[in-house]
Amino acid sequence: MAKLDETAAGVYIISVTPFTDSGVLDLDSTDRMVDFYLEKGVTGFTLLGMMGEAPKLTLAESRSFVQRVLKRLNGRVPVVVGVSSPGFAPMRELTSAVMDDGAAGVMIAPPGTLKTDDQIVSYYETAADTIGSDTPFVVQDFPQSTNVHMSPGVIARIIKVLPSCVMLKHEDWPGLAKLSALRAMKDIRRVSILVGNGALFLPEEMERGADGAMTGFAYPEMMVDVVRAYGAKNPERARDLFDAYLPLARYEQQPGPGLAIRKYVLQKRGVIASGSLRKPGPKLSPLDIAEIERMIARQSKRLQEIG
Amino acid sequence: MAKLDETAAGVYIISVTPFTDSGVLDLDSTDRMVDFYLEKGVTGFTLLGMMGEAPKLTLAESRSFVQRVLKRLNGRVPVVVGVSSPGFAPMRELTSAVMDDGAAGVMIAPPGTLKTDDQIVSYYETAADTIGSDTPFVVQDFPQSTNVHMSPGVIARIIKVLPSCVMLKHEDWPGLAKLSALRAMKDIRRVSILVGNGALFLPEEMERGADGAMTGFAYPEMMVDVVRAYGAKNPERARDLFDAYLPLARYEQQPGPGLAIRKYVLQKRGVIASGSLRKPGPKLSPLDIAEIERMIARQSKRLQEIG
Amino acid sequence: MAKLDETAAGVYIISVTPFTDSGVLDLDSTDRMVDFYLEKGVTGFTLLGMMGEAPKLTLAESRSFVQRVLKRLNGRVPVVVGVSSPGFAPMRELTSAVMDDGAAGVMIAPPGTLKTDDQIVSYYETAADTIGSDTPFVVQDFPQSTNVHMSPGVIARIIKVLPSCVMLKHEDWPGLAKLSALRAMKDIRRVSILVGNGALFLPEEMERGADGAMTGFAYPEMMVDVVRAYGAKNPERARDLFDAYLPLARYEQQPGPGLAIRKYVLQKRGVIASGSLRKPGPKLSPLDIAEIERMIARQSKRLQEIG
Amino acid sequence: MAKLDETAAGVYIISVTPFTDSGVLDLDSTDRMVDFYLEKGVTGFTLLGMMGEAPKLTLAESRSFVQRVLKRLNGRVPVVVGVSSPGFAPMRELTSAVMDDGAAGVMIAPPGTLKTDDQIVSYYETAADTIGSDTPFVVQDFPQSTNVHMSPGVIARIIKVLPSCVMLKHEDWPGLAKLSALRAMKDIRRVSILVGNGALFLPEEMERGADGAMTGFAYPEMMVDVVRAYGAKNPERARDLFDAYLPLARYEQQPGPGLAIRKYVLQKRGVIASGSLRKPGPKLSPLDIAEIERMIARQSKRLQEIG
Repeated sequence: MAKLDETAAGVYIISVTPFTDSGVLDLDSTDRMVDFYLEKGVTGFTLLGMMGEAPKLTLAESRSFVQRVLKRLNGRVPVVVGVSSPGFAPMRELTSAVMDDGAAGVMIAPPGTLKTDDQIVSYYETAADTIGSDTPFVVQDFPQSTNVHMSPGVIARIIKVLPSCVMLKHEDWPGLAKLSALRAMKDIRRVSILVGNGALFLPEEMERGADGAMTGFAYPEMMVDVVRAYGAKNPERARDLFDAYLPLARYEQQPGPGLAIRKYVLQKRGVIASGSLRKPGPKLSPLDIAEIERMIARQSKRLQEIG
Repeated sequence: MAKLDETAAGVYIISVTPFTDSGVLDLDSTDRMVDFYLEKGVTGFTLLGMMGEAPKLTLAESRSFVQRVLKRLNGRVPVVVGVSSPGFAPMRELTSAVMDDGAAGVMIAPPGTLKTDDQIVSYYETAADTIGSDTPFVVQDFPQSTNVHMSPGVIARIIKVLPSCVMLKHEDWPGLAKLSALRAMKDIRRVSILVGNGALFLPEEMERGADGAMTGFAYPEMMVDVVRAYGAKNPERARDLFDAYLPLARYEQQPGPGLAIRKYVLQKRGVIASGSLRKPGPKLSPLDIAEIERMIARQSKRLQEIG
Repeated sequence: MAKLDETAAGVYIISVTPFTDSGVLDLDSTDRMVDFYLEKGVTGFTLLGMMGEAPKLTLAESRSFVQRVLKRLNGRVPVVVGVSSPGFAPMRELTSAVMDDGAAGVMIAPPGTLKTDDQIVSYYETAADTIGSDTPFVVQDFPQSTNVHMSPGVIARIIKVLPSCVMLKHEDWPGLAKLSALRAMKDIRRVSILVGNGALFLPEEMERGADGAMTGFAYPEMMVDVVRAYGAKNPERARDLFDAYLPLARYEQQPGPGLAIRKYVLQKRGVIASGSLRKPGPKLSPLDIAEIERMIARQSKRLQEIG
Repeated sequence: MAKLDETAAGVYIISVTPFTDSGVLDLDSTDRMVDFYLEKGVTGFTLLGMMGEAPKLTLAESRSFVQRVLKRLNGRVPVVVGVSSPGFAPMRELTSAVMDDGAAGVMIAPPGTLKTDDQIVSYYETAADTIGSDTPFVVQDFPQSTNVHMSPGVIARIIKVLPSCVMLKHEDWPGLAKLSALRAMKDIRRVSILVGNGALFLPEEMERGADGAMTGFAYPEMMVDVVRAYGAKNPERARDLFDAYLPLARYEQQPGPGLAIRKYVLQKRGVIASGSLRKPGPKLSPLDIAEIERMIARQSKRLQEIG
């Protein structure tokens, strides 16, 4: 499998991890899910991300899930694996395993103990050294969750000193000014920037130089179609599509219930057998479900209107 | 002026504080702003909230601004004043002053040092004692900003032990389950619940028992009309309106630039003379402004379509 | 091996994990270290704690280290193993393995995502269910590191609902009032309370009802002798000993360099072959080392004076 | 009064603020306290610091207290006033007032919203501009309380760009390596560095280049004598003194009860009429008081032994 590089674009779906109602890893649903995401037009997969319930898996389960996805994909699109860890020994172990299995690269979020600019850069230097300079990696900039704040200058320093850094998963919030600042920098290598946060600012981010999205949403076709519309120089079409999905995207982006909402819709769409999260995880109430159903109905109607 | 009580409903606008381009408090714009908000149908005002740049004002400026609003309003709708403070002596001083001036009640957010349930309840007991049992107050539940997390049970304890607590400003995020849990409690006095977070979940919150909104948005008529549509048992109309404004509401809800966006639109609408924030505050870029203008144009078009 | 229960007392040493200079797990030093700690009079061992560099170990290394310690101990004193994890599946896996190997119980610190009293209690309920009701566990109350704040009432609730909770590792800071509050509660089962924070408040904590210490210090004999002196109703002797060691104990308690200081002294005392921390970890400067040597010299002199 | 400059040294006492038992500002005790601190040999005063209960005072009380201290001092030693504020307008107002009254400079801690290196430097630039380039200021580096982390490089940048920055209040913890790093920098102006954290690392900090202490302790003579002993090239004497006071200093350094302990001892020593903190503040228990008395007795005995 080709390795990830700075030209990566389109939609790298942050994949859910399917479980049965009793919390067992569901590999049959995994196959269906791979087919579904591919059919909707994603250009890559990201596994074991924060929304992939990665910390709830044992190492053996993580490896089994990654292998199943890689086997089903059979090289059709690249796979990035989240390997963030409080320690470098477990990071090396998981990275080595998944790269041997055929992953295209890994994603690393910084631990919350990092405070100053220098500490952040130094952390990524050690991480890059740990996984090996031949393993491409993605910097995940997600301060709402990691509590680590990277200025544009810090990201630029990482890109400069570490050639194996090929992509930024941009999900600072607010992050529009940061994205513009990074794209305005003339003295750094152009890396791929894919955006996160449930794509809630995808139109603005595409206009500011993003190459696509690396996030999850129960309707990945929204992200695929918006990115394609920008590629086709049709921003009004992109905005029409985006606005039609926005009420549900906003609803799904709630931390906590968000993943349960996404899995509910994926189950409803026939992708996964069960919408269950592994414990501990929230359960949807009848009110939640009524709201989702209502939004899906309105979304269908609106999509028909815009054609 | 009548005091705030548990029946408060509708839209209590979180008012901006107008400054001139050079950062001087702009009392002429204040008058126009009061007229504008009233004309759009708000049922109350909230001054010196977090989005009112309160910490940037001197005590004298705070008092001057509150007095100007009260004078212009002349009792037509009630005014709530934010009096959160790291110390009780300043809280008492400001509360006493604004209640004498004619405010209907005050709002208190908890300091970030509170950690356990007992500490939170104890804090509000001391606060209520400080401001006097005849001063109605609003509990602001905004953990994203305060870093204080109140369970429904803690809020219920505050309501039970403190009769002067008449309202909850609900802006936990996610907060829908919390709102439902509070409204399901049968053993507590029913207080007013007005929602925050830029009204980004207003339809769902109205369905779950909110009495309206206490937040800001450059188009307060959206909130007023959505709340009225629910009052008129017309939820589909409410959702149509909400969805039409959602792209801009989402954009204005960005922490940091959000207030600059709101003030830009208010200036554009002729409400305030300058969209400037007092230092330190972000400035909008040409890209930001182009995005706002584009969203406003699309919003107008969509509002015409839905009639 | 007998399981941990509420009668546990004395000094459960938070064991370091020895590495060679190149960062390889050093099992020969592990044997020497076990002998050293036993010789100094500890009554139990705690492995894979925060000061045991646990997150830097792979699962295989963790298991190998635990097995080596258990083998060398051969049942002479009980072993508690830290199994804190962001997910319950890895917690179950590690717990099951070490209990099979002969551990006496496990220790669980709460994840930083817990905010309210109810969330904390609910987390421990799920954790206790995950590891099985026949596995005794220790609650680690260490808010400076976990950012989770447990009131005495919350700890009491955990003790009440979970019979397998047999010990509190008390290291809130300040924590003296909390310890007194817990011991004053008449309606809860009396669990063992061992104190942490490098034993910096050991005399006061013994007076307030602690059963001993569960922490680390390069001179474990200080903790053992202080606890024994209290057992012998000789508090002045306990304070004399404590005060003699306090300058170094204070120095070793610095977060960050603290563990490097402890390992330096253990190497100097011939316990472990290398004072190295596995990456990433601080290195001592010549100034640091000069300070340590000076404090050790003064400490020896002072110990001779008090006899 | 001469203004603060880079040559400041010795002990700048972080003054308590005396209240009566009923919480009223106690200006008579203020006079006695000024005399006491002077008599013990302090070389400066710092008012309205975090341990001075500053946030609990109204603006009028703050000014009244500062004026009383300045009047009693009558220019004998310089006074620094804490002016940290969430907003620049209140900071300007207070600074202007106290400098007019005769303060020698002000101290500014950063607000917790600052995250990146650039944000921190930019904040101090605006602050320095706000208070005026002729007002000398102290940077307070106290991440345990502010949650703002300044690397040595950031502090160096502030010193370079802002000539009115004349002192660092150093109280990062651990902070020894940071102090050494700052003193090793050859390309920055040498500013005064006074240390905080209750002087718990004063000997090590003096050896690494501190000019003294700016902190509180109920026995300011300890700090004065330790600093003098270093000035007299007698580090062993300094350590003997320090060690004698260390058990109580450690006890007084507990966040929360610490200030109540300090005030209790100051009351016992006849300095202030009441040891009360203004609400909200902890009260000492009989156990606390017994521990303090015991430590004071042992401290006296030890001081006699060392002569």
